[in-house]
Amino acid sequence: MESRISIITLGVQSMRISIRFYRDGLKFSTDAKDEAEWAIFRTAGTRLSLYSKEGLAKDIGIPFDGTGFGGITLAHNVPSREDVDQIIQQAVAAGGSLLKSPCEAEWGGYSGYFADPDGYPWEVACGDGWEFGEDGTLWGGSLGPMPRPNAKDGGDA
Amino acid sequence: MESRISIITLGVQSMRISIRFYRDGLKFSTDAKDEAEWAIFRTAGTRLSLYSKEGLAKDIGIPFDGTGFGGITLAHNVPSREDVDQIIQQAVAAGGSLLKSPCEAEWGGYSGYFADPDGYPWEVACGDGWEFGEDGTLWGGSLGPMPRPNAKDGGDA
Repeated sequence: MESRISIITLGVQSMRISIRFYRDGLKFSTDAKDEAEWAIFRTAGTRLSLYSKEGLAKDIGIPFDGTGFGGITLAHNVPSREDVDQIIQQAVAAGGSLLKSPCEAEWGGYSGYFADPDGYPWEVACGDGWEFGEDGTLWGGSLGPMPRPNAKDGGDA
Repeated sequence: MESRISIITLGVQSMRISIRFYRDGLKFSTDAKDEAEWAIFRTAGTRLSLYSKEGLAKDIGIPFDGTGFGGITLAHNVPSREDVDQIIQQAVAAGGSLLKSPCEAEWGGYSGYFADPDGYPWEVACGDGWEFGEDGTLWGGSLGPMPRPNAKDGGDA
């Protein structure tokens, strides 16, 4: 299995609310209309998609019984502390909820959390020495190198 | 906020078991040793990381109370049905559990699901007309175009 995640799908309660949150509020790139039954957002290197939580459980064939913290976070990493503050504010203005105000993190960076309309936690963080590609992909710094597209001798050796 | 997910973090019960599952079983690229308190895996365009579920909830400042289906799936998309079958077998051999045997999907492709040691569902799927980049990133096909790295006129217009 190659070291690769093609799509992250969030099961949501209201497609309309979530599409508006990600498309209109956070400005994620998509062709999805309000009434879409499934929405896919173009993101650098991977895709985010939305689907009804009940339908997602049904597709897998498992019970639709989840409560509380699902155990997964998504991170959006940025070059500066100002970016962290600004994005957390944007997310809250878009209808997200503030889970943790940006502050110094134990690991040395600066980080805050917001939740999307279904409570999925997003961390917005910056760290020292992080390098970003032109499309925003986090390449190096303290997290270690990543394989670059088309690099034959990338980190997957 | 740019249309981008930098890191996906799975909260896990046993770092050792999960590191071995992803590193040794699925062959995901990492420098993490068995005893790591945090593990990061290089994946095309994004990163997967592992951290204790309790610690992750604590970092966010929310209760560690989740049960059942957390509502998120990760997808690993491949060019052929044989790839789907082979990867599902590999994941089960590595200690994952079979959630759904590969079969024809309603959306026209071929798809199966396995769960990692903490129950996080991964879909392995192939579809007609999907195009892949050299690093395995899913570019086009029925899911619509994605911005290519360094493309100034990508899908984020």
